[in-house]
Amino acid sequence: MSEHITVRGFVATDPTTRTTPSGLAVGNFRLASTDRRFDREQQAWVDGATNWFTVNMFRQLSTNVAASLSKGQPVLVTGRLKVRQWQNEERSGTSVEIEAETIGHDLTLGTAFFNRAVGRTA
Amino acid sequence: MSEHITVRGFVATDPTTRTTPSGLAVGNFRLASTDRRFDREQQAWVDGATNWFTVNMFRQLSTNVAASLSKGQPVLVTGRLKVRQWQNEERSGTSVEIEAETIGHDLTLGTAFFNRAVGRTA
Amino acid sequence: MSEHITVRGFVATDPTTRTTPSGLAVGNFRLASTDRRFDREQQAWVDGATNWFTVNMFRQLSTNVAASLSKGQPVLVTGRLKVRQWQNEERSGTSVEIEAETIGHDLTLGTAFFNRAVGRTA
Amino acid sequence: MSEHITVRGFVATDPTTRTTPSGLAVGNFRLASTDRRFDREQQAWVDGATNWFTVNMFRQLSTNVAASLSKGQPVLVTGRLKVRQWQNEERSGTSVEIEAETIGHDLTLGTAFFNRAVGRTA
Repeated sequence: MSEHITVRGFVATDPTTRTTPSGLAVGNFRLASTDRRFDREQQAWVDGATNWFTVNMFRQLSTNVAASLSKGQPVLVTGRLKVRQWQNEERSGTSVEIEAETIGHDLTLGTAFFNRAVGRTA
Repeated sequence: MSEHITVRGFVATDPTTRTTPSGLAVGNFRLASTDRRFDREQQAWVDGATNWFTVNMFRQLSTNVAASLSKGQPVLVTGRLKVRQWQNEERSGTSVEIEAETIGHDLTLGTAFFNRAVGRTA
Repeated sequence: MSEHITVRGFVATDPTTRTTPSGLAVGNFRLASTDRRFDREQQAWVDGATNWFTVNMFRQLSTNVAASLSKGQPVLVTGRLKVRQWQNEERSGTSVEIEAETIGHDLTLGTAFFNRAVGRTA
Repeated sequence: MSEHITVRGFVATDPTTRTTPSGLAVGNFRLASTDRRFDREQQAWVDGATNWFTVNMFRQLSTNVAASLSKGQPVLVTGRLKVRQWQNEERSGTSVEIEAETIGHDLTLGTAFFNRAVGRTA
């Protein structure tokens, strides 16, 4: 099974995009999502812990996101979760990535003007 | 349990927004999401059936969406699914609504310029 | 896009299963999911409205569920949401179905003894 | 935002459960979920990479799961994703955990006999 996930958070690094030798656009950025929970004792909403993700993008989504998003903006990301163990000569660790299906600005926190791409398919 | 759902689709009616007598902004629009599936016989992606939803919005999200989205635009919506039976003097039926948590333009199909709202909280 | 959804609820009708002339096992049951929300005024959890779904099952899942679930049991269902308009000579309406990917008993409310099927693939 | 996630996978370690000094039942197990994808060149479904999670359980769910699941069984887990950075004197790393809302056996791969707990609430 592929784990589908939807994350609402903030762009923590400016998105990058590049074209591979085979002509495929690929890019990524870091995404931070902080839990908000209602604290009954305080009778108020408080910040919880933060989930960090690397968001990987392909094709038209990668170029459109690089042209649209910047660090600090609130976004909505949906895609497939990839939890991977990695290892190099010096260290090992766990990466937590989302292969994005699509991405949009979070309109609870602002407005957006959209320009539909012409003559292209995603 | 509240059923969380994320839908990628197209805005089928221009979003409305209004302010209730108690001062709460509320709005809605119709959303169409068409399944795409890979047909092995045709060796191609083909359109499947369409899911239709009424998307309900509240507070700042409602006013921001009314200022940002228009009919025909591709969007990403996340929220809680509400399947309700209704009945009036003449008819009865089933409504399928999403109480939106947030909404954004679908950046696989275009670019967007974002303006963060100032001095407001969602 | 296919809308993935996970629902926790109660089996409202005993699951059925049958084999089509082409040899495919198919079955279904009705599922009710009632929202629980924390009411700040009452300082207590209260029942909200109920979402109703028809759950459709195929192949081994259909026969296993018919042998395992009965009306009134708590379950967890994950699959794809299908909102469909239907019409016959007399009436029209909206159906809300889940094409189940898988189903299990909800272990917050009891224990289960599992028998793995042998020599079969799902 | 809390990231809701549903994972279908296999129990990789026997679930544990214990009662804290304050009387709360808590437990956990490791869960492995392997992606299956249709390879167009091979015209067959093939195994992809594996996502690993630690599943944390509380209260009645923890005791019921410890009595119901064992290593190697197929399960369905729904809950909230927690991606956490950790550090001790010697090492640091990333943990990927699910705070389970509920869990059930995956009935695509077998049958289950359910015993509803009596006189208890989850």
